[in-house]
Amino acid sequence: MLIATGAAPVKAEVPGIDLPGVMVLKTLEDGRRIKQFLAESRVRQAVIVGMGYVALEMAESLRQLGLDVSMVKPKPRFLPWLEETLADVVYRELEENGVQLHTGCALERIEADANRLKVICSGLESDCDMVLVAVGVTPNSRIAAQAGLDLGPAGAIAVNRQTQTSDADIYAAGDCADAHHVVTGRKTWVPLALRANRAGWAAADAVCGRPVELQGVAGTAVFRVFTLQVARTGLTLAEAGEAGFEPVENWIESRSRAHTQTGAAGIWVNLIGDKKSGRLLGAQMVGKEGVAHRINAPAVALHAKMTVEQFYQTDLAYAPPFGPTWDPCLVAASQLLKKL
Amino acid sequence: MLIATGAAPVKAEVPGIDLPGVMVLKTLEDGRRIKQFLAESRVRQAVIVGMGYVALEMAESLRQLGLDVSMVKPKPRFLPWLEETLADVVYRELEENGVQLHTGCALERIEADANRLKVICSGLESDCDMVLVAVGVTPNSRIAAQAGLDLGPAGAIAVNRQTQTSDADIYAAGDCADAHHVVTGRKTWVPLALRANRAGWAAADAVCGRPVELQGVAGTAVFRVFTLQVARTGLTLAEAGEAGFEPVENWIESRSRAHTQTGAAGIWVNLIGDKKSGRLLGAQMVGKEGVAHRINAPAVALHAKMTVEQFYQTDLAYAPPFGPTWDPCLVAASQLLKKL
Repeated sequence: MLIATGAAPVKAEVPGIDLPGVMVLKTLEDGRRIKQFLAESRVRQAVIVGMGYVALEMAESLRQLGLDVSMVKPKPRFLPWLEETLADVVYRELEENGVQLHTGCALERIEADANRLKVICSGLESDCDMVLVAVGVTPNSRIAAQAGLDLGPAGAIAVNRQTQTSDADIYAAGDCADAHHVVTGRKTWVPLALRANRAGWAAADAVCGRPVELQGVAGTAVFRVFTLQVARTGLTLAEAGEAGFEPVENWIESRSRAHTQTGAAGIWVNLIGDKKSGRLLGAQMVGKEGVAHRINAPAVALHAKMTVEQFYQTDLAYAPPFGPTWDPCLVAASQLLKKL
Repeated sequence: MLIATGAAPVKAEVPGIDLPGVMVLKTLEDGRRIKQFLAESRVRQAVIVGMGYVALEMAESLRQLGLDVSMVKPKPRFLPWLEETLADVVYRELEENGVQLHTGCALERIEADANRLKVICSGLESDCDMVLVAVGVTPNSRIAAQAGLDLGPAGAIAVNRQTQTSDADIYAAGDCADAHHVVTGRKTWVPLALRANRAGWAAADAVCGRPVELQGVAGTAVFRVFTLQVARTGLTLAEAGEAGFEPVENWIESRSRAHTQTGAAGIWVNLIGDKKSGRLLGAQMVGKEGVAHRINAPAVALHAKMTVEQFYQTDLAYAPPFGPTWDPCLVAASQLLKKL
């Protein structure tokens, strides 16, 4: 038996959450429902609750359709998994593209007001025609919990490196199940496409008797918002501290092309290392070009448990249209080494 | 004492090589000389001798200035360090951009003909106004050879991981010196900017008494030609065979963006693995976008001496604008695994 029940959007339990015009986006059907609503109603203003990947991608889409877009979230930090200087670069990109950001505003209720909606938060009221609630996802693990199977982080179904649950005859794969983190060795829950897809293949192999040993995830992720690419891999400073490392981070600003080239844009790289072992623990990047695939070099380094010094010594590609002689990743590593 | 004499263009020893209008491109001064010649003479047709990085980049530049461009090389294979299918993609790109390619044509002599030049090869005569000779570089190691220091591959000055020559009080760094290859562990000569620059820093550290231990190079390189990005890291199939591996290669064609995205372009990835150990030995890529930095993931994997299976398990970034769920590198690894 294989449990592959995926994840579901977290439902904000506030009054008015079921009003017409209040949407979530997880499934293809959700997407079609949003498109239909936009086509049939006169939507000029939208409020997005949440500021994660999906919320930010939707902010871009709705701005491109000409809507006024406001975003609210309860906690004070925008993109808390990004080093603050890097998060500020993304924040400014959204502001420059006309998105109004309201951190520290907890959603209290949504009211129907004539043909419109009113979003009421702590310290903020916004009139709008549509509300998108994008406050994260949660694993669909109830069937496993009810069957008495072990659960892991975030309530995801606990599985071993062969995708078996605590009952060896029951497998689980996809966004409903947990995984090992390659940096900490501990369990984690990362509901992203590659990991989910890979676990599905692994479950099929395991069931068919092929040896399977999943290495685990580095938590590598990337998204685009307007003209920016934003990427991460491994642990944040806070996550590294919680995992028992003695983490230090350092960010640098570099350029996406050599100084002889026109069209270069800024590229910001933050690296996190462990003062005790010298190990590379994580990386974050923001920039207009050359970020999405650049993050994969530190991601592979995390799998290999490289030290920052070893990563600094890697032979990365150079040509003037694609970066400076010293790749921004290597510059970041050389600067972090001074703090380790 | 530090020897940092760099490299010089290989001079084709044929009659007419010193005629006005026959140029090389290595130094800034060479570049200025070419620019001046183009500005002062009525140059409509150029012949480029050689088909390496510099030759191909010059072909693009000269085409953009509106010149007719022909390229000649003596050996039959175009870009012999690229798997043939990938080399064909680059070959077609040059043809589509109006560059005439003549492989198997050895330069015999250059003649002055009224105000023009005539390039005479085996089986080909080309009239032109300018000849660019770009047939590679050679290390400037004569001073070291005359001093009795050991030389390494290609006649480069042999240095250890502390950049010391065979006389421990004499250091050498840059394109004049050799390096260790991280895949073979053997000496190699790779005259590329990052390696040269890194060796300079290492020599300074070593002289100042800071401990230095250069890991070596993976031979990672990238260049752009017209709309294509072409990259490599590690060993080719032939190089891997010569180094004692039992190499197998496999190429795949994938897409630069997810199938839901407009603007996706083809991306070709060739991976080389060792049948005996399962180790990843090299990678090559061609495509219109997402190649230049994508090559760094296998480059880091080579430094870590990963197997193809370990590389296949790495958690690479995914978002629809930047690639399919399974990065082309991972697809290539999964297909190569079937042959190992």
